[in-house]
Amino acid sequence: MKKYNIQLTNEEKAYIAGFLDGDGHILAQIIKGDAYKYKFNIRFSIIFLQKQDRHNFMQKLNSMLKFGYLRIRKDNISEYTITGSESVEIVLKILNKYIILKKELVNLILHIIDVKKSIKNKEDFIKLCELVDQTSKYNYSKKRTVTASIVKNYLMQGVETLT
Amino acid sequence: MKKYNIQLTNEEKAYIAGFLDGDGHILAQIIKGDAYKYKFNIRFSIIFLQKQDRHNFMQKLNSMLKFGYLRIRKDNISEYTITGSESVEIVLKILNKYIILKKELVNLILHIIDVKKSIKNKEDFIKLCELVDQTSKYNYSKKRTVTASIVKNYLMQGVETLT
Repeated sequence: MKKYNIQLTNEEKAYIAGFLDGDGHILAQIIKGDAYKYKFNIRFSIIFLQKQDRHNFMQKLNSMLKFGYLRIRKDNISEYTITGSESVEIVLKILNKYIILKKELVNLILHIIDVKKSIKNKEDFIKLCELVDQTSKYNYSKKRTVTASIVKNYLMQGVETLT
Repeated sequence: MKKYNIQLTNEEKAYIAGFLDGDGHILAQIIKGDAYKYKFNIRFSIIFLQKQDRHNFMQKLNSMLKFGYLRIRKDNISEYTITGSESVEIVLKILNKYIILKKELVNLILHIIDVKKSIKNKEDFIKLCELVDQTSKYNYSKKRTVTASIVKNYLMQGVETLT
């Protein structure tokens, strides 16, 4: 487990949980990459997006949660992203008690992070990807390019169906 | 002051403040109506919008804040609206300690509600409308149809410039 020193009051945790429920994105995505053992990997992320004039607020959020990176995109959007299973796990575990709206999604993501720790073979990894597919119903707007069936076709039959 | 019995823990207040910062709308709008003393009035509202499948959450939010009305719109949006200066004032005063992102807007709205209480004449009312105009910069997407200058033209010169 990563070393961390997030020291938040219960009110701060509750505030951030409310903000995350209202305007945050929690994602698990299947990512392709030759360097990965199973040629795919799972990327976990928590993302906050605001117009650039709210960048100060994003800095405050970042300073509270410690993890993650802040940048101003070319389209003048301030983007605060926390990626990586360890960081995402820590942050979600800290906030989970106060999460209401995204409760099911947070629990599913934490479950996926847990399952990922004991992957032993291709079959396990495909099952993991199937869990990742289940997260899509909680993210209305996210287009999913790599699904479990694409991973399965690739790992079990060597067929690349990724477009 | 309206009688109310909102009993929220500090964590609940902080959560709702976070959610309001992330996904809520706080509005002051100038409304036309012949029944009003100055032919215009100020409408204060706090609005939450979610897709219909999150209606349960909106019910929970409503049960916490007590005030306001919940409905499912024809476009399948669950809308939770708190209107009226008294209700909005009570809710904002309860949450204000925990508000971060919309702090300036909340303080401005509370100020406008306060100023409204001591309106004595047209001139006061026009000044009030000018304060309402100032809230527009905090609401990116809201189109404002009635501004202070329209009210001023109408009340001082009898000119109706409302289209």
